[in-house]
Amino acid sequence: MTQELDQKMQDALESSLAFVKEAAQLKQVLRKTSPIGLERKENSAEHSWHLAVMAMVLSEHANEDIDLNKVVRMLLVHDLPEVYADDVFIYDRTEEHTVKEREAAQKLFGLLPDHIAAQFHELWEEFEAGETAEAKFARALDRFQPCFCNYNNGGGTWVEFGISQDAVFERNAPIEKGSTRLWHKIKALVEDATTKGFFPAKEDVKYG
Amino acid sequence: MTQELDQKMQDALESSLAFVKEAAQLKQVLRKTSPIGLERKENSAEHSWHLAVMAMVLSEHANEDIDLNKVVRMLLVHDLPEVYADDVFIYDRTEEHTVKEREAAQKLFGLLPDHIAAQFHELWEEFEAGETAEAKFARALDRFQPCFCNYNNGGGTWVEFGISQDAVFERNAPIEKGSTRLWHKIKALVEDATTKGFFPAKEDVKYG
Repeated sequence: MTQELDQKMQDALESSLAFVKEAAQLKQVLRKTSPIGLERKENSAEHSWHLAVMAMVLSEHANEDIDLNKVVRMLLVHDLPEVYADDVFIYDRTEEHTVKEREAAQKLFGLLPDHIAAQFHELWEEFEAGETAEAKFARALDRFQPCFCNYNNGGGTWVEFGISQDAVFERNAPIEKGSTRLWHKIKALVEDATTKGFFPAKEDVKYG
Repeated sequence: MTQELDQKMQDALESSLAFVKEAAQLKQVLRKTSPIGLERKENSAEHSWHLAVMAMVLSEHANEDIDLNKVVRMLLVHDLPEVYADDVFIYDRTEEHTVKEREAAQKLFGLLPDHIAAQFHELWEEFEAGETAEAKFARALDRFQPCFCNYNNGGGTWVEFGISQDAVFERNAPIEKGSTRLWHKIKALVEDATTKGFFPAKEDVKYG
């Protein structure tokens, strides 16, 4: 390796490690949902891990042919801008927050060597746009997982934040775009949750 | 889709979701190391996420040509048996624990549909054997990350558990097999840590 190339690689290493250190902060970004069986809130790093593993075991249930590796990489990256923009409850999201997240992505991915930053921007934008088969499936998993946690936690955020069954169906409808089978499954779980009393009483509903 | 095939896919979905629920427990398996900047211990799920992202930004520093997607999948899976076998400090690992982990892998991956279970076993065994280019690089990251956390936490487990600089070099030597550049980097960080007093005094060393 020439000295010049070696220096270039050394610089790339330092840039990537600066990113690795900053990205670690995703472990302190707390979501509304709790992990299955735990009282504490889930952080966005462990959530991202769970989604990536879910992609690996559920990809055969995607509506379209997908590039699983791309879905996995997309899910690992999709929440990273929260390091600066924080997580926003799915029932509270605004256009303003999307702008904030895009700025955060610029700042965070900007730490990376250019050729890697470009890959991260591409994956993140593809997820946000939700148009490709991979993005549709990744987004389906991102919606499915908190519902699955809530169901297994006896109601979770549905009860804690006063979310009605109707609101759950409305906000999570994008699951169907990625996987009809996962959508039918979540509908069945939500109906079962209703009979089990995992939803708030009418007077406690804040998100109807 | 025929009714028979549909039932088969439905059964596969249920098996995979049983696994998704069980795998979630990795979020409560605590490691010795703390995440950068945090007091609490890191769990194996967020650790696995961090490693997978590290693979995405550091793959150009691997010694050999690697299939990055395989490294990412391997890292997402490599700690899963800890759900039943718990995490063991790198300085305390025994042959007995490896047997326990293999049994745990059988139990956990056994929840999955056979064709997916086979993929998980293969990835896990490849990581454990540490012989392929992908496994060597994945293992290098798995060793590099806690050292990087300790360095950025002012000593971390090195101080807390009385680990000498020599022990760090000895236990983390496998980093060199996966990435000479990462090995040189960690050596430089450990030497810098020594001058900064991030290692225990001689009389406090328990792992020498």
